[in-house]
Amino acid sequence: MIAVFDDSAVVQAMFRFEETLAGAQAAEGIIPETAAKAIAGVCNAQLYDIPALVHAGRRAGSLAIPLVKELTKTVALYNQESATHVHWGSTSQDVLDTAMVLVTRHALGLIDTGLQTLIESLLDLAEQHLATPILARTLMQPAQVTSFGFKLAGWAAPLVRARLQLRETAQRALQLQLGGAVGTLAVMGDKGGAVAHRMADALGLAVADAAWHTQRDEWVRLGLEVAVLVGSLGKIATDLSLMAQGEIAELAEPSGNGRGGSSAMPHKRNPVSAMIALAAAARTPQHAAALLAVMGQQHERGLGNWQAELAEWPGLFLSAHGALTALAEAVAGLHVDTARMRRNIDALQGLVFAEAVSIHLAGAIGRPQAHALIEQLTQQAVASGKQLAEIVTDAVKADTCLREKIDTAQLLVLFDAVAATTPAETLARRQLQTLRAMMKTMQPPTALA
Amino acid sequence: MIAVFDDSAVVQAMFRFEETLAGAQAAEGIIPETAAKAIAGVCNAQLYDIPALVHAGRRAGSLAIPLVKELTKTVALYNQESATHVHWGSTSQDVLDTAMVLVTRHALGLIDTGLQTLIESLLDLAEQHLATPILARTLMQPAQVTSFGFKLAGWAAPLVRARLQLRETAQRALQLQLGGAVGTLAVMGDKGGAVAHRMADALGLAVADAAWHTQRDEWVRLGLEVAVLVGSLGKIATDLSLMAQGEIAELAEPSGNGRGGSSAMPHKRNPVSAMIALAAAARTPQHAAALLAVMGQQHERGLGNWQAELAEWPGLFLSAHGALTALAEAVAGLHVDTARMRRNIDALQGLVFAEAVSIHLAGAIGRPQAHALIEQLTQQAVASGKQLAEIVTDAVKADTCLREKIDTAQLLVLFDAVAATTPAETLARRQLQTLRAMMKTMQPPTALA
Amino acid sequence: MIAVFDDSAVVQAMFRFEETLAGAQAAEGIIPETAAKAIAGVCNAQLYDIPALVHAGRRAGSLAIPLVKELTKTVALYNQESATHVHWGSTSQDVLDTAMVLVTRHALGLIDTGLQTLIESLLDLAEQHLATPILARTLMQPAQVTSFGFKLAGWAAPLVRARLQLRETAQRALQLQLGGAVGTLAVMGDKGGAVAHRMADALGLAVADAAWHTQRDEWVRLGLEVAVLVGSLGKIATDLSLMAQGEIAELAEPSGNGRGGSSAMPHKRNPVSAMIALAAAARTPQHAAALLAVMGQQHERGLGNWQAELAEWPGLFLSAHGALTALAEAVAGLHVDTARMRRNIDALQGLVFAEAVSIHLAGAIGRPQAHALIEQLTQQAVASGKQLAEIVTDAVKADTCLREKIDTAQLLVLFDAVAATTPAETLARRQLQTLRAMMKTMQPPTALA
Amino acid sequence: MIAVFDDSAVVQAMFRFEETLAGAQAAEGIIPETAAKAIAGVCNAQLYDIPALVHAGRRAGSLAIPLVKELTKTVALYNQESATHVHWGSTSQDVLDTAMVLVTRHALGLIDTGLQTLIESLLDLAEQHLATPILARTLMQPAQVTSFGFKLAGWAAPLVRARLQLRETAQRALQLQLGGAVGTLAVMGDKGGAVAHRMADALGLAVADAAWHTQRDEWVRLGLEVAVLVGSLGKIATDLSLMAQGEIAELAEPSGNGRGGSSAMPHKRNPVSAMIALAAAARTPQHAAALLAVMGQQHERGLGNWQAELAEWPGLFLSAHGALTALAEAVAGLHVDTARMRRNIDALQGLVFAEAVSIHLAGAIGRPQAHALIEQLTQQAVASGKQLAEIVTDAVKADTCLREKIDTAQLLVLFDAVAATTPAETLARRQLQTLRAMMKTMQPPTALA
Repeated sequence: MIAVFDDSAVVQAMFRFEETLAGAQAAEGIIPETAAKAIAGVCNAQLYDIPALVHAGRRAGSLAIPLVKELTKTVALYNQESATHVHWGSTSQDVLDTAMVLVTRHALGLIDTGLQTLIESLLDLAEQHLATPILARTLMQPAQVTSFGFKLAGWAAPLVRARLQLRETAQRALQLQLGGAVGTLAVMGDKGGAVAHRMADALGLAVADAAWHTQRDEWVRLGLEVAVLVGSLGKIATDLSLMAQGEIAELAEPSGNGRGGSSAMPHKRNPVSAMIALAAAARTPQHAAALLAVMGQQHERGLGNWQAELAEWPGLFLSAHGALTALAEAVAGLHVDTARMRRNIDALQGLVFAEAVSIHLAGAIGRPQAHALIEQLTQQAVASGKQLAEIVTDAVKADTCLREKIDTAQLLVLFDAVAATTPAETLARRQLQTLRAMMKTMQPPTALA
Repeated sequence: MIAVFDDSAVVQAMFRFEETLAGAQAAEGIIPETAAKAIAGVCNAQLYDIPALVHAGRRAGSLAIPLVKELTKTVALYNQESATHVHWGSTSQDVLDTAMVLVTRHALGLIDTGLQTLIESLLDLAEQHLATPILARTLMQPAQVTSFGFKLAGWAAPLVRARLQLRETAQRALQLQLGGAVGTLAVMGDKGGAVAHRMADALGLAVADAAWHTQRDEWVRLGLEVAVLVGSLGKIATDLSLMAQGEIAELAEPSGNGRGGSSAMPHKRNPVSAMIALAAAARTPQHAAALLAVMGQQHERGLGNWQAELAEWPGLFLSAHGALTALAEAVAGLHVDTARMRRNIDALQGLVFAEAVSIHLAGAIGRPQAHALIEQLTQQAVASGKQLAEIVTDAVKADTCLREKIDTAQLLVLFDAVAATTPAETLARRQLQTLRAMMKTMQPPTALA
Repeated sequence: MIAVFDDSAVVQAMFRFEETLAGAQAAEGIIPETAAKAIAGVCNAQLYDIPALVHAGRRAGSLAIPLVKELTKTVALYNQESATHVHWGSTSQDVLDTAMVLVTRHALGLIDTGLQTLIESLLDLAEQHLATPILARTLMQPAQVTSFGFKLAGWAAPLVRARLQLRETAQRALQLQLGGAVGTLAVMGDKGGAVAHRMADALGLAVADAAWHTQRDEWVRLGLEVAVLVGSLGKIATDLSLMAQGEIAELAEPSGNGRGGSSAMPHKRNPVSAMIALAAAARTPQHAAALLAVMGQQHERGLGNWQAELAEWPGLFLSAHGALTALAEAVAGLHVDTARMRRNIDALQGLVFAEAVSIHLAGAIGRPQAHALIEQLTQQAVASGKQLAEIVTDAVKADTCLREKIDTAQLLVLFDAVAATTPAETLARRQLQTLRAMMKTMQPPTALA
Repeated sequence: MIAVFDDSAVVQAMFRFEETLAGAQAAEGIIPETAAKAIAGVCNAQLYDIPALVHAGRRAGSLAIPLVKELTKTVALYNQESATHVHWGSTSQDVLDTAMVLVTRHALGLIDTGLQTLIESLLDLAEQHLATPILARTLMQPAQVTSFGFKLAGWAAPLVRARLQLRETAQRALQLQLGGAVGTLAVMGDKGGAVAHRMADALGLAVADAAWHTQRDEWVRLGLEVAVLVGSLGKIATDLSLMAQGEIAELAEPSGNGRGGSSAMPHKRNPVSAMIALAAAARTPQHAAALLAVMGQQHERGLGNWQAELAEWPGLFLSAHGALTALAEAVAGLHVDTARMRRNIDALQGLVFAEAVSIHLAGAIGRPQAHALIEQLTQQAVASGKQLAEIVTDAVKADTCLREKIDTAQLLVLFDAVAATTPAETLARRQLQTLRAMMKTMQPPTALA
């Protein structure tokens, strides 16, 4: 992903814009065919000193200014006349915005592929653990029993939605920028529209209704969609880091290959994938805010805000891709300790089943009585450290009335962690079907490129 | 909009959730029909001391806790048994999230209507000014000539897109929250799904694939979509405030009714609508960042992050609606000074037409020569303060070669501001058609409620 | 804290400004003494319809406009001439900024007191637990052994610094705003400075070098200092929430009084104080960003950015105070389970002491050998589930060479958790002294009011 | 500034930490003197493949891990035993945090120097323009007359404060990080404190009260102080960009050397320095928010949040330095068009003097009458387009009563723009003295290095 946005990739995309512009203008008779050919012949980043261009761009306020200058000089080496047709009727922002669209399409392809990998790992893992009991936790406290597959389906679902939404948003946002000095393409006379269509076709981009030099809404939506993805990755990383704590130890990231070990502290298995995703999730909201903050771009081309947007853009994709790759690696090699999941449930003395027991008793003795009884018995369990199952069974046996109405064998089933996962399992099974079906509707990522 | 999110509206929406839950559970045979009726009978915010609920909610960490408690007590006044069925199988976050969905739907209705009004004003105004010449400005400097209608179409377009996207995002995001303690609806046995469908039908909401207690992506997307709208409103306000400056004075907000005047400074016409929209645009990116920042919600229900999201949510809508209403008022009564627009063009000595003249001359003498000549003549104009038209005409007349090739009458047409708007006018006319067509596809906002 | 920033408090502070202004101007002979008295007589918020003022302020773009109007009308009821002297030479922003300074001083007083309480609780608790062994955790993994008192001193230290810095920043930021229409106090002739000094004396505020209408740096610094405090409170809440997890259970927030319990899940002890502080910590960075984002205020008084700052300001203090109060309550009643702290250490089979053992062995057999040996033995411990102490002792006994050089009794001391806290205890003891000394240098909070 | 934070500078600073650590430990007898010498001999970034280190660091989760590994290997090439003493008792975060402190000190030196240059330019310019009349503008509308020197003093003042505060904050924040694995320096026995003092002396850093691995408040304060500076630079850039608009044209950035010109639009003078500063000001608040957002670092060393902070840090300084340098260049060559400033005042028909005239008349006929009369006359001026001076003079002459009381010659003085600057001039003169005095108290920036 670093390569996608690096200077040479952006410069090459800028040359691709210039080449395509000249080609389209030649086809429309705005510039000579020979000029288009002369320009195309030198639109190759490898011919230029890219660090020097970047340096000059910083001084000029835009990379496009030295690039067009160097391109013009290079064309002129071969053909003076053709050189006057370079970048004709276009403006710096046209070339830079379109170049960013092109490299961003590449970036989205990588993210789409990364998402596919991670989602499929999660769905497969969920399938395996549909009936694996695990503590559900609310407000960072153990709550009741759920299934690990249900939890994994919950991790996967927003990623499937993200993949779908990124594709839809990209379709609108990946559009050619071509407006000329003030967005009216005035220099091209009545052929501006035709040139734009030819260019968009050649580059595989959408044609915008109007130049979007200072109307960045579609572009910003794309950036925000990436930010939402990072948010959902951050949720996974949060859970993973919590479940990997030494005292909970239900999950561990794959180790080996220098990953997360410590010779001074041999018991440590540092969750380095979660770390990367959490760092991305901490930074991304601010990058997203920056995109929104600079939407108030002045008049026909903004002062400072467009430049700020440009600078913030790659960071969003780097964070997203870093988090995605890290989590894909972690999930692919995830150590799942189902025995520990069970021990963590057992350590709670059956208190996590109190509600189910209360409902069961209510059928026999009414809700108010059942509720009061269970409240009393759970307090006993907490105070004594005994298993609630034992306390409840003893209470039923000790009470003539309860003894008649309640079958203690049935009662004990309520304390069975596997049986308790049934509702979660049922929901997860259905959700996995839906998610798999959504994944099938999505073309392979190459469709984006 | 303040009323939409005020405590009593939220509380009423919470009662609506409880009433609908009881109704759906009775229909599914989970609770007695009499209990559902008893609950429905007292699900009315006016029966309760709302400030006391809010105060207790702050202490308990959630408004739902005292509300359910008070509701239970109130039902119990009439029927002790029915009281045990209040809020059955549901959790605090179910009721609060669904209540926020309901009030948010109301808020979106207001925004949709506000957008319709503002967009229509802008489109009408654009229609009137398709051929009104105005300076296009880039990097906060006068650049070339465009049409005011073109500029207005540019303001309107992202608002039309925002209206469309808000509706689409809302369809996905306005969904029932119903998951019970840990998202599995375990207490309702195999009837959880059926209850959810009945409730969603009754409330006119979508059914979620799974409880979204800690998977907030769809909800956050809706908030971000509002933030994008505010960004686009901020762009309008930026331009408006710049054009309303005393030294530019092309636009002025409507005055009177205490709006923006100053007795000590009688020449002032403070752009108070722009001010409101700019303030909203400055604050909103941070509110959006907050939504993204709290997406990493732990496990099955988060600690602190969900609460933070809840607190940030209304501000987004208040800002959006405030900005929208302010700009709608400003645009409806906008003073457009077309004479001043022309004077601002004229003050630039025709230099804004230099590029067009250069292209025209290129047809006769080739681009390099034309470019060099115009560069020299514009420097003369800048130095002398004379009109470029005059200098160019003199230069043509003085040069035997040019005199033959160039028709000075044709040349002077290039300095005609109205003629110069043609490309912008053509583009704007087509864009207005597209925008009007998009507006027609959108049902009236009541469809949302 | 809600009361500090509520409308009536702000309105009362605005009246205090107007009264003080009139008094100072009368003393300087700019307005008649009778006018000052007439104005002072009605500068009382209780005489006015505050909701109506707020409503009119929203329309006018500033609360100061209707307030000055109503004040003028009220003075005029008694004395027409005096009414012309109301708000003389001042501007809306003068009165609103100064009012915000006055209520903020009050808010800072509450925060200072809250800090004192929380800090003292933490220092006392630290003192009690200087030698209480607890796991230190890095990257969310158990690492080595530290003392709980050391951890508590670490929580307290940034709060002591925050208290100090808030006081210092406040001394610079709590300054009178008085500039008149464009910051020059032109209307007051050469008496502007004298009026400002009299007002500042009367209000107990600093005199600014110049009006700070659009130079907000000192004011923003104060807001950021509050944000830093919230960040440090969020650190405490993070640790607390992690240590309160059911599976770690070293700390629990006080329960009872409706705090954090759940009848359906009787084992839960929801950390509601941590929740409040975490929510504050999630929101505050964005509020701080908003203050920074609006610093680019135009010319002599800004459009939109000042208004945005004003709107964001109280939220910072509300969040800070809410987090502070919640944590103070939690720490005051904190359940510290030192036995569980020990059990959590013991569960790690002595692996947390591996580094210490390695160093000890190095003294006898050199570092490379010691390191290699311990690496091998810890792997044995991890694989077998045995205590490292046992494995090391066995290894020493089994090796003739080691047996001679290593005293196994001394070796076993290295596995003593209490002994292992010594370095932490020593550092903490010294740090507590420093912190107590810093606290002593700070006057009681009343010095701020 | 790019060089300050580039990989090789950070790596060199890390080596400096390792060398100094070994030296201090040798002096305390913790490691052999020969080991310290062996380590020092290879602590030179030029000996290592820095891109490879960076790449490995990304994989390992911290640059420190491969660096220590490579350093150890390199020392071992010469001396196996000495290699075991590398990085002894220290942790990755110790070396990285201290390295960041060292490069940040360098960065602060550059900013301090940049500030000195810009401030001195502003103060000198202010001195020249103490009595230059210019429109003061409020809410982006011309308001009254002030002096350009007053405006410039207002720009300079927050920069002087920033310089002072940066120095003070740096004194506290530029501290050694040395805590070892969990902040207790346990491995160094009772010599940890002595080692820290020796290292801090050698590096010219402060000694922290305790390791600040997860207590980032002082460090974050330093970052926020940089953000405040950028905010104040953004304020200057905002004003500059507004005053440089073609229609206002009171200021222009220096041109030439490829700066901001456009051959197609020869009248353009793009304010590229303002652009750079505005872009920095748009991005920086979000970077500051990121620092605050990650303060809740878990336990003894954080997971993800510390890494996020590290990644955000350099951006703050790059933005600040870029903005500073750009504005220094702009101010050094600023074109000040005092004639245009005057013409902009004159274009407002004297209405900006209405308040002064009203006050003057009040002396003769009482405030209510004066106020009413001026309100009427200004409306006349607005309607007729005539100069207010003329209208007022005519009104006075036409009214027997006024004619007696008012000296029209004196009246006309009120319409003298230069005379109207007197209050601003007086204030500015005093403020400049204060600012110059503050500058004198500050040692040359080398004191920081």
